Amino acid sequence: MRAVQVVGYHEDLQMHEVPEPTISGPWDVIVKIGAAGVCRTDLHILEGQWAPKTNVPLPYTIGHENAGWVHEVGSAVTNVQPGDKVILHPIVTCGLCRACRLGDDVHCENQRFPGIDCDGGYADYLLTSARNCVKLADNLEPADVAALADAGLTAQHAAAKAAKRLRPGDFCVVIGAGGLGHIGIQVMKAMSAATLVVLDANPDALALAKQLGADETILSDGSQVDAVLGLTGGKGAEAILDFVGEGGATSQGIAMLRRAGFYYVIGYGENIDVPTIDVISTEKNFIGNLVGSYTDLQDLMVLAAQGKVKLHTQQYKLADFQQAIDDLSAVKVRGRAILIP
Amino acid sequence: MRAVQVVGYHEDLQMHEVPEPTISGPWDVIVKIGAAGVCRTDLHILEGQWAPKTNVPLPYTIGHENAGWVHEVGSAVTNVQPGDKVILHPIVTCGLCRACRLGDDVHCENQRFPGIDCDGGYADYLLTSARNCVKLADNLEPADVAALADAGLTAQHAAAKAAKRLRPGDFCVVIGAGGLGHIGIQVMKAMSAATLVVLDANPDALALAKQLGADETILSDGSQVDAVLGLTGGKGAEAILDFVGEGGATSQGIAMLRRAGFYYVIGYGENIDVPTIDVISTEKNFIGNLVGSYTDLQDLMVLAAQGKVKLHTQQYKLADFQQAIDDLSAVKVRGRAILIP
Amino acid sequence: MRAVQVVGYHEDLQMHEVPEPTISGPWDVIVKIGAAGVCRTDLHILEGQWAPKTNVPLPYTIGHENAGWVHEVGSAVTNVQPGDKVILHPIVTCGLCRACRLGDDVHCENQRFPGIDCDGGYADYLLTSARNCVKLADNLEPADVAALADAGLTAQHAAAKAAKRLRPGDFCVVIGAGGLGHIGIQVMKAMSAATLVVLDANPDALALAKQLGADETILSDGSQVDAVLGLTGGKGAEAILDFVGEGGATSQGIAMLRRAGFYYVIGYGENIDVPTIDVISTEKNFIGNLVGSYTDLQDLMVLAAQGKVKLHTQQYKLADFQQAIDDLSAVKVRGRAILIP
Amino acid sequence: MRAVQVVGYHEDLQMHEVPEPTISGPWDVIVKIGAAGVCRTDLHILEGQWAPKTNVPLPYTIGHENAGWVHEVGSAVTNVQPGDKVILHPIVTCGLCRACRLGDDVHCENQRFPGIDCDGGYADYLLTSARNCVKLADNLEPADVAALADAGLTAQHAAAKAAKRLRPGDFCVVIGAGGLGHIGIQVMKAMSAATLVVLDANPDALALAKQLGADETILSDGSQVDAVLGLTGGKGAEAILDFVGEGGATSQGIAMLRRAGFYYVIGYGENIDVPTIDVISTEKNFIGNLVGSYTDLQDLMVLAAQGKVKLHTQQYKLADFQQAIDDLSAVKVRGRAILIP
Repeated sequence: MRAVQVVGYHEDLQMHEVPEPTISGPWDVIVKIGAAGVCRTDLHILEGQWAPKTNVPLPYTIGHENAGWVHEVGSAVTNVQPGDKVILHPIVTCGLCRACRLGDDVHCENQRFPGIDCDGGYADYLLTSARNCVKLADNLEPADVAALADAGLTAQHAAAKAAKRLRPGDFCVVIGAGGLGHIGIQVMKAMSAATLVVLDANPDALALAKQLGADETILSDGSQVDAVLGLTGGKGAEAILDFVGEGGATSQGIAMLRRAGFYYVIGYGENIDVPTIDVISTEKNFIGNLVGSYTDLQDLMVLAAQGKVKLHTQQYKLADFQQAIDDLSAVKVRGRAILIP
Repeated sequence: MRAVQVVGYHEDLQMHEVPEPTISGPWDVIVKIGAAGVCRTDLHILEGQWAPKTNVPLPYTIGHENAGWVHEVGSAVTNVQPGDKVILHPIVTCGLCRACRLGDDVHCENQRFPGIDCDGGYADYLLTSARNCVKLADNLEPADVAALADAGLTAQHAAAKAAKRLRPGDFCVVIGAGGLGHIGIQVMKAMSAATLVVLDANPDALALAKQLGADETILSDGSQVDAVLGLTGGKGAEAILDFVGEGGATSQGIAMLRRAGFYYVIGYGENIDVPTIDVISTEKNFIGNLVGSYTDLQDLMVLAAQGKVKLHTQQYKLADFQQAIDDLSAVKVRGRAILIP
Repeated sequence: MRAVQVVGYHEDLQMHEVPEPTISGPWDVIVKIGAAGVCRTDLHILEGQWAPKTNVPLPYTIGHENAGWVHEVGSAVTNVQPGDKVILHPIVTCGLCRACRLGDDVHCENQRFPGIDCDGGYADYLLTSARNCVKLADNLEPADVAALADAGLTAQHAAAKAAKRLRPGDFCVVIGAGGLGHIGIQVMKAMSAATLVVLDANPDALALAKQLGADETILSDGSQVDAVLGLTGGKGAEAILDFVGEGGATSQGIAMLRRAGFYYVIGYGENIDVPTIDVISTEKNFIGNLVGSYTDLQDLMVLAAQGKVKLHTQQYKLADFQQAIDDLSAVKVRGRAILIP
Repeated sequence: MRAVQVVGYHEDLQMHEVPEPTISGPWDVIVKIGAAGVCRTDLHILEGQWAPKTNVPLPYTIGHENAGWVHEVGSAVTNVQPGDKVILHPIVTCGLCRACRLGDDVHCENQRFPGIDCDGGYADYLLTSARNCVKLADNLEPADVAALADAGLTAQHAAAKAAKRLRPGDFCVVIGAGGLGHIGIQVMKAMSAATLVVLDANPDALALAKQLGADETILSDGSQVDAVLGLTGGKGAEAILDFVGEGGATSQGIAMLRRAGFYYVIGYGENIDVPTIDVISTEKNFIGNLVGSYTDLQDLMVLAAQGKVKLHTQQYKLADFQQAIDDLSAVKVRGRAILIP
């Protein structure tokens, strides 16, 4: 089969002919890829940023946001069968450790991450597990949702946590209305009656945010802290969903956070650097967010099937992978790029 | 001032000229009534059902769903001032007992209930407390919201509890799309992505439910249990909001409830009568619901100001109180009746 | 191997020589039984009460509270290995359905229950799954804990739910200080600072309760409702843990429950029969409780290893199974009876 | 009456004869001081650290940890009467703002803090409010509990939050077994079955911690991170209660924190400085903690009355205030110093 592989860092990806994956374990599932999301993390992989963490042997097949059709299943698989439309939870988990048993499978102690530390989905077929398959509703197709498998899931996970705390009219500031942020906005609107204030440096992103239901949009031109304080009577917002995490976003975000408020860290890059006296005298809270559980992905697929979460995508043939990568690098992709084998 | 009073049980109300209330305590507030909701409980009061519980001396002024303008305030009142538009939380609470200090003021150990056990709001002025006043947003008027003060608040309180547990696509059955139910539907739509299935014996109520966002409507014609089981793959709904509580609603509701599901009791009349072996073998839960806290009413006013909760009202002049009572008795009121002094 | 089997209802159990179980599935685990609890449910099985629910073909091996040593494991088992000391979660679950993925595996949609609907642990060996094995700490032996596998787990599950809500000094009434109740008392003491009030008709049970940490004990002689109201200033208890559920326990328990209180239904037999007007006017809540999750059993084993939960047991050789059954029927067992192969 | 006052920063306190406070508002309460805690914050006040935050006019009476007997009450006070033994919540709150109505009165929008920004309790009498009085159980005296009013309350608040999340055997690291920490240890033991690991640089503090129930004690000699990782199988602790917050405590604490763990910030001094990539890749959480609510103080008094929280105190006569201050500065106080008028 065809597979787009990392052959070296700081080198272009290459398409190779490789053997199809085969079933060896009882819960193994082979999925015929319907669509694979092209993610900024893929660029970081090529730059070598992940190499020291994963030590993945090269060459390997990239692509960690995958959806398609079940092709073949292991002997113990009961939840899907060949032909089923599925989106794949990005992390293959053991199901036996304490974290898995608590439903918090992102913290599985025995995990692997296809496309990151083993073969992924820029290919005709992918080896995954029964535990990763979420069946799609009739009104959804793999190409509609593939790019929700990781980026969208992360936004869902964080937004659902925030929604659970927020009461009607509480202010929730969304920093960054890009790939993750625009999903987060839709999830928040579907699951809460909070007042959404969206910040971005890009007026087009703000226009999209407005269209997706943002109650207020603010251009990040240096005056955004004052603008949020102005909107909130000087008190700040009950929650911040920070999808940026760099370029000063965190210090600005902390300055916009109300006493007893919750700061959801999603984007990353810079440090959170805050005096403990400020943390305690205002009783502020900082919440980490990492991907999402299998059940979070089920929830997100419900929202997608209900039409409440929509993703803008730009499709490329698998063979045109380099074009997709180039467009992403050049910030020419509207919404998310996906590869269709 | 004018006041419509209960002069005897099984007798008509009478309008009397009575002295205006006066400030005596530091947190007292006198409100000029803008609108008072006419509630089915008022009919029950006239039938004498509440007499043995309240022992209220007659005559007294009826009316427990009130909104208007602050007219005069006690020496310690700091949160409102004369002229402010307000809706009134229906229970006057002490602010000092454990329940009040926990924010659960409905269970105040030193409460009184104007319109039920002391003078209420079918009048030109009402004596209440600073603790009862929720200021209205600019885009809301007393006549828009008065009938939310008790009935709507009860629906808000129960629906907010349910919304906190429900995940996207979980089934929530609403039994009864009447006065409380149609508010409950709007609150659920505003605060959750649950799938709402609404049951009512009245096709008009179902049509309104559909318009307010119900995902499925089912006529309560005897086949509703099967219909809900059919919609839920035989498993039942994760939550039931029962706004009826009589005429067999509870046994049917329990039959529609999924394993580990939550049954919210709001309407009342019959008994919950369920074998403990069924409770434990399916791990079902039954949750009582009583009015709502002051902060619940604040939340409901936010939803009203956001345009997410709307109430259909039929206005009567205060002097036409008997017509309002007669129309309510004869089920001729569309939405809620309100009296305008 | 030896196996004690149900050969007919209303007949005595018989010990048979049967083939040892064999591994067929990848997560299969065969455990050499170290101890099997003899439970009142076993008597009910022999009386035929469970036959219409399970339709288990006879003869089959009884015994659903099991601990021992791992003997053999399937190809995919990674969490235990032969020789490990284990206690077994009583329900074999799929790990793939929504309930399992949420960590709420008691509601697995594809479960079986060894000893109830397939072969259990009154035998030399038992077939179970990797998902059922909880490893024991060095200071615990199978004979110490086997009877915690189901009865103790149920008490743990309910008490942990209650402990999460109760604040220091809140009153928690424990109805019934028998097999489950005396575990519940120990769990509550370990996990909360609630004031425990224990009710039982048996003075010996109350003496044990006192020794295990009960703050107050009350003889159930007909005056127990008044006694609880007396202790609680007439307000009732914030929580009731009802381990009895028959003989009037529920109506008495409801009368002892405070406004906004929670009633945990664990024992069963009679109906909960309560007017909805009482449910709503006091905002009382009724919570079903069914066994406990795998992680609840892990927690209970921690409490046992910490020495905070201790079980009184009376040991019988496996061959003396009839004596154990007879003693249990005659209420001659102190604590829990266990069979040692 | 006598009052010990701040007359200038970097100057000694002085005892003055001042007029007794008088009742002016309806919820005013005057308390005859039974004991006043001498707190490290008092030293910081004298150093001028709080002056720019409070702008309190000098001279004023210091002392923010107070207990005694109700002496006189305002016209609207119903919850206490002259003669009642009380401990005083340290913050005088309005009872009307959203935070107060939610039970989260520490975030009251209209608060004052006797002893910090107005006259406090190093005196014969103190002016406070009905909302601040928690009645003491018969077995507690003002001198037993005064020093719990602020420091102890802060420990209670943070520990209760942590206890709610921790399951049996989860690791909870307590950094610092001093004034607050040794209360935190007692609260954790009373309310959870977590495994407590206590760190301190002082072997005497560790000995006390052990006596109060710490499961493990570790000397903070530079190897404490490794020691905690060793105890936790390299995974770190589920919770950190950091009562130090300076001298490198936070970076060490973060290194000891498990994936998905919660870090409770209580002590302060240095910055939390952590890469966002570490926050998200391990999903760690940082929780601010500020004093505690009125109901937290009620809970702490329950634990004290139950004998589960005990405070070591060293008593001084009010006139010996300088000795108490000097001893505290010289670290000569065992437990907490209190002044007895």
